[in-house]
Amino acid sequence: MFTRADDRTASQLREVSIETGWSAHAEGSAIVTFGNTKVLCTASFTEGVPRWLKGKNRGWVTAEYAMLPRATGSRTARESVRGKVSGRTQEISRLIGRSLRAVVNTKALGENTIVVDCDVIQADGGTRTAAITGAWVALALAVEWARDQRIIRSTATPLTGSVAAVSVGMIDGTALLDLPYEEDVRADTDMNVVTTGDGEFIEIQGTAEEQPFSRTQLDEMLDLAVAGTARLTEIQQAALSAVAQAQPAEQE
Amino acid sequence: MFTRADDRTASQLREVSIETGWSAHAEGSAIVTFGNTKVLCTASFTEGVPRWLKGKNRGWVTAEYAMLPRATGSRTARESVRGKVSGRTQEISRLIGRSLRAVVNTKALGENTIVVDCDVIQADGGTRTAAITGAWVALALAVEWARDQRIIRSTATPLTGSVAAVSVGMIDGTALLDLPYEEDVRADTDMNVVTTGDGEFIEIQGTAEEQPFSRTQLDEMLDLAVAGTARLTEIQQAALSAVAQAQPAEQE
Amino acid sequence: MFTRADDRTASQLREVSIETGWSAHAEGSAIVTFGNTKVLCTASFTEGVPRWLKGKNRGWVTAEYAMLPRATGSRTARESVRGKVSGRTQEISRLIGRSLRAVVNTKALGENTIVVDCDVIQADGGTRTAAITGAWVALALAVEWARDQRIIRSTATPLTGSVAAVSVGMIDGTALLDLPYEEDVRADTDMNVVTTGDGEFIEIQGTAEEQPFSRTQLDEMLDLAVAGTARLTEIQQAALSAVAQAQPAEQE
Amino acid sequence: MFTRADDRTASQLREVSIETGWSAHAEGSAIVTFGNTKVLCTASFTEGVPRWLKGKNRGWVTAEYAMLPRATGSRTARESVRGKVSGRTQEISRLIGRSLRAVVNTKALGENTIVVDCDVIQADGGTRTAAITGAWVALALAVEWARDQRIIRSTATPLTGSVAAVSVGMIDGTALLDLPYEEDVRADTDMNVVTTGDGEFIEIQGTAEEQPFSRTQLDEMLDLAVAGTARLTEIQQAALSAVAQAQPAEQE
Amino acid sequence: MFTRADDRTASQLREVSIETGWSAHAEGSAIVTFGNTKVLCTASFTEGVPRWLKGKNRGWVTAEYAMLPRATGSRTARESVRGKVSGRTQEISRLIGRSLRAVVNTKALGENTIVVDCDVIQADGGTRTAAITGAWVALALAVEWARDQRIIRSTATPLTGSVAAVSVGMIDGTALLDLPYEEDVRADTDMNVVTTGDGEFIEIQGTAEEQPFSRTQLDEMLDLAVAGTARLTEIQQAALSAVAQAQPAEQE
Amino acid sequence: MFTRADDRTASQLREVSIETGWSAHAEGSAIVTFGNTKVLCTASFTEGVPRWLKGKNRGWVTAEYAMLPRATGSRTARESVRGKVSGRTQEISRLIGRSLRAVVNTKALGENTIVVDCDVIQADGGTRTAAITGAWVALALAVEWARDQRIIRSTATPLTGSVAAVSVGMIDGTALLDLPYEEDVRADTDMNVVTTGDGEFIEIQGTAEEQPFSRTQLDEMLDLAVAGTARLTEIQQAALSAVAQAQPAEQE
Repeated sequence: MFTRADDRTASQLREVSIETGWSAHAEGSAIVTFGNTKVLCTASFTEGVPRWLKGKNRGWVTAEYAMLPRATGSRTARESVRGKVSGRTQEISRLIGRSLRAVVNTKALGENTIVVDCDVIQADGGTRTAAITGAWVALALAVEWARDQRIIRSTATPLTGSVAAVSVGMIDGTALLDLPYEEDVRADTDMNVVTTGDGEFIEIQGTAEEQPFSRTQLDEMLDLAVAGTARLTEIQQAALSAVAQAQPAEQE
Repeated sequence: MFTRADDRTASQLREVSIETGWSAHAEGSAIVTFGNTKVLCTASFTEGVPRWLKGKNRGWVTAEYAMLPRATGSRTARESVRGKVSGRTQEISRLIGRSLRAVVNTKALGENTIVVDCDVIQADGGTRTAAITGAWVALALAVEWARDQRIIRSTATPLTGSVAAVSVGMIDGTALLDLPYEEDVRADTDMNVVTTGDGEFIEIQGTAEEQPFSRTQLDEMLDLAVAGTARLTEIQQAALSAVAQAQPAEQE
Repeated sequence: MFTRADDRTASQLREVSIETGWSAHAEGSAIVTFGNTKVLCTASFTEGVPRWLKGKNRGWVTAEYAMLPRATGSRTARESVRGKVSGRTQEISRLIGRSLRAVVNTKALGENTIVVDCDVIQADGGTRTAAITGAWVALALAVEWARDQRIIRSTATPLTGSVAAVSVGMIDGTALLDLPYEEDVRADTDMNVVTTGDGEFIEIQGTAEEQPFSRTQLDEMLDLAVAGTARLTEIQQAALSAVAQAQPAEQE
Repeated sequence: MFTRADDRTASQLREVSIETGWSAHAEGSAIVTFGNTKVLCTASFTEGVPRWLKGKNRGWVTAEYAMLPRATGSRTARESVRGKVSGRTQEISRLIGRSLRAVVNTKALGENTIVVDCDVIQADGGTRTAAITGAWVALALAVEWARDQRIIRSTATPLTGSVAAVSVGMIDGTALLDLPYEEDVRADTDMNVVTTGDGEFIEIQGTAEEQPFSRTQLDEMLDLAVAGTARLTEIQQAALSAVAQAQPAEQE
Repeated sequence: MFTRADDRTASQLREVSIETGWSAHAEGSAIVTFGNTKVLCTASFTEGVPRWLKGKNRGWVTAEYAMLPRATGSRTARESVRGKVSGRTQEISRLIGRSLRAVVNTKALGENTIVVDCDVIQADGGTRTAAITGAWVALALAVEWARDQRIIRSTATPLTGSVAAVSVGMIDGTALLDLPYEEDVRADTDMNVVTTGDGEFIEIQGTAEEQPFSRTQLDEMLDLAVAGTARLTEIQQAALSAVAQAQPAEQE
Repeated sequence: MFTRADDRTASQLREVSIETGWSAHAEGSAIVTFGNTKVLCTASFTEGVPRWLKGKNRGWVTAEYAMLPRATGSRTARESVRGKVSGRTQEISRLIGRSLRAVVNTKALGENTIVVDCDVIQADGGTRTAAITGAWVALALAVEWARDQRIIRSTATPLTGSVAAVSVGMIDGTALLDLPYEEDVRADTDMNVVTTGDGEFIEIQGTAEEQPFSRTQLDEMLDLAVAGTARLTEIQQAALSAVAQAQPAEQE
């Protein structure tokens, strides 16, 4: 049986924190940490929508993911300097955007656009799941801001729920929750699971890096993931409650 | 309950065919059709490996996916003309490569590289799953060619198994196998499942396009998918057997 | 005197076929083969014209040429992956577009655009001349489709004639028609000739690869080319007649 | 006479802080703030030099500057997504690199490379001067690290001095030190001054945005700048001393 | 004390000439030479302004700098072929544009755009300062042309003054004016100074290439530069006067 | 019958001049003018060959063509700024390179490379033919330089002959030699012909812009072209003789 270097049990998350209001400029922002993984999420609200959506009375939510060059153990060349965005970066940006849109009521959002930027300041495995978890908090704050500003006036709430994500994997036949980099490179299977706050699935991406996985192993991993995102949902709600309590005047 | 436009049952594949030996130049090739979806798969064998793998006594298998501009209902601008490969294209190319590598014994392959090109000639949903299913046949033929040529001399077989893939989805609460384009755009959930010939999972990618999906729905979809890839595995084996029978002389 | 590997006489075309209606989606399509050279030509009809032509009551016809990565004896890297279209590809795309436009009455076409894609599935010399010959057939079918649909309503025909193309070359002092790859690399001069169905010239591109050529040699090559495109014109007309006979119902 | 919105005198810096050791991975790192401007500086040390410098027994120091998309009041599109680095970004990257190299003894550095990344997390004017000031601290820490690791073994110190930078400008005839964004856009002249710790000039870049400036005004601005960088030099030294005291064990 | 290879005194310009009317097409043009440095400056006048300036009753002036591949001692690859403009080129283009705009009254210019292209035909140091000096002459001629054509009709003059630029540097403790390439590579400090015809500063860019420079050295260099641009201003005026005398008919 | 705006007869060249030694840096250079078309040709000689030619004891000659932005009547955006080389530019660069290589004995050249840059300073039709005609002179001078320098030591001459080029066209049924821009846009057919000094063909590119052309018309155009390049050959030889007489000392 595999023993984790940080002494966690198989079903335990790393230390998770979500610090809101980090950016002086963004309409919503949060720094999320999953252990040593640290992602700055800023939600930028702008009135109007992309050209292809004009006149449809619907809003748009999208996301962009990136890593600072020295977020990783050795320096990675900037994508701006290489002149193109890697397949991995695009894949993760698309995943975050899709996950957020799964809980957005674009009609209630009105013809407004929210872009959530997820910049990995420090990486230690699970950057995409931390990004999704933090991005939803930044998004929720930006939506709240727009309602306070009366830019969004619909009575329906633009967010139909919350979204959180976590990684799971198999190492030496053991299913493990929330893998740091060191475990990630050793895992036979690597799976990212995105759920709603109600525990239903938004996205499942499981990959056998070394060994194909069985239906039984899949079930074990899904059990861990669902429990993990439930815990992350609580942490998200606590972060938002703290904001609500800290700023009573602004919200009335 | 949802009725399919082509009168298939929920658990039925479209008409599937795999025609090998299509290319005069490639070391392995196949045209695979899933209904109206048609993908040309060519496997190009070259001696030597990419620079980062040199001197490790291991081979490399990778894949590239692309669509002809008029594979689709309306013309799509060429990625070469736009000057970059889209996120979707890269994502699928990476998926195919990963899926193939899951059954490749790179040591037995020796310092050789196989690139499998999957060019969608005509698209009607499920292009990535058809591509994986056809790509494995092209790969198997290229490996066979290299063994016949004595370029690969290892006694161990470079392929540890076979790979097939199929899409599943949920429409109006019904789980359906192998969605054509028309069903794909209506589906609440869209899932691509890649398995080995033994029915173990290599990759699961499930996305809630409209509605989050429950654990029960996930299980229904996985059941259909596993049965589907089992049937595709039979069709792959039949295509390879036909080649083996047609070319007895070459193999001795 | 040079003897051809495939036993053709100097003035003989390779086996040529034009199979129409290959694509389920395109408004006009044809697969053309010149021996082992095989090009898929699809004509995409769209209403409207590029911005610079708006409001001039004229249509637009253009073409794009490309090769699949394993159309050739060894794999060629994709232009989409390299991030730019090669000079050769652009040169051929421009040639095909110019050749087609030479027989298009853009006023009769109305403010509509036809893009003809020529994708080389398999290459064995003469891909650009095969592409022009097939592209015209796909174009003619797309024009016919638009007239059947009453999208083009002018009484004047949008096509003022037909276009066919063939290569000629000099090897060891002998002028040869329709060179396969093997002859192409040996030729002292390589010339591509595009003519109308009436045998007048649309384009002549002759290049001395090794040895400058004399006026006499030029005349010999032109004689072969004009006879060759006359024969290709007959094959084009036969292919279109077959379509007309096969689909009487649709055309009424 | 111009009154500053933040009640500073004309010759006063904004609140400046330099927090070292911010990154878990980088060999040297610092977050520098000049008021609301916040820049993360990470120095990445690698053995070896770029190809054009090989075999010359000299090291290399370079820098890259970038802004996070929502560092600014409204979101800026990523340079990676636009596919190229803007002229402004390149200009600043080159300025930072040149400024650092002015105090680097490349022979004492040995055949090693240090890349200093300056990522603007939040912007409020003076990002390039904050970046230079923080970059030097990160560089000094990386050099210290390499000496502790005995990777740099020369007895000569690789750093011949320190570097700090500050902006000055003219508004309504008054020379002002360290302009925030609000003052920067109003200034007639904008000047960035880089000096050594000894107060000699490394770089002067003065631009008349609105009104040409006189020799007298230039002298006023230079006086302010030299006093400003002297104060910044003290803050840099304090930040490094704090590190030295905190990690006595490592340095012995 | 440093002796100059071309026997000039420290405060002497190289031989400078400005030949106007060089281009048959451009609205204003000049070839400027500073010794062996030769730059072709063409000013292209077009009615209308960039999108972001529309409807503001103001014009726009911008500049682009480039070098022919063999302007230099050894051939430099074309930026068009490399697919991007270098940081150096962008930096200089921005400098020229900024310098010209410092003397443009954009309101008097009306909604018109002038692009000044500075193409270095031959390079021997000081290309950016020669370019600015020649660009202003081409700009003045294009403005004059537009007033003759009655395209610019404002009574206020669109040019509020003239602009000239020169390089200065320190070699072995001596301040020198207008450095050729040979001196430029040896200089400890390299400074480019742009002034108005009245001798006020528009831009100062000083860089310590080898040795930091003192306030005293800075003052010596500025003295030389101001005297140098005063002389260049006279040469610019003489070039324009020659045009005015040569074309009396056109101007009445 | 068509009357030419410049009163030339149908078979007359525009005023042609070739001025050698224009560049201070290039190993060979010439400015060639055909009427108002003016092209600067510089030949850069470097020892060594591209990687794909190493170790074959053969040299390489290539060419690059470009236009300055205001060479034309209205300004054209720079290809460097647009980030890619247009199809037209690549096509002409390839044509010039091919034409020069037709008279190069690459074995006699040794493992050396000559790049000929053809930059159009002013354009008025026929830029590619002027470029070829001037490029050969620059190439001949660079070869001569390398033989004088004893870098090329073979007894065989690296140039087996000379190359010149001219345009011909049909307007209103009349064949015309050397078309300026004004005639070029009116021509039904436009043809560029490249010949050796002996009058044999290296390249023929004829395009029916409006009307297909007959064999008779083709013959008329070829007659004009061959006479035209014969006259250009004389002008090239005169330009080279002038150099030889002017620099007797250097050649001994």
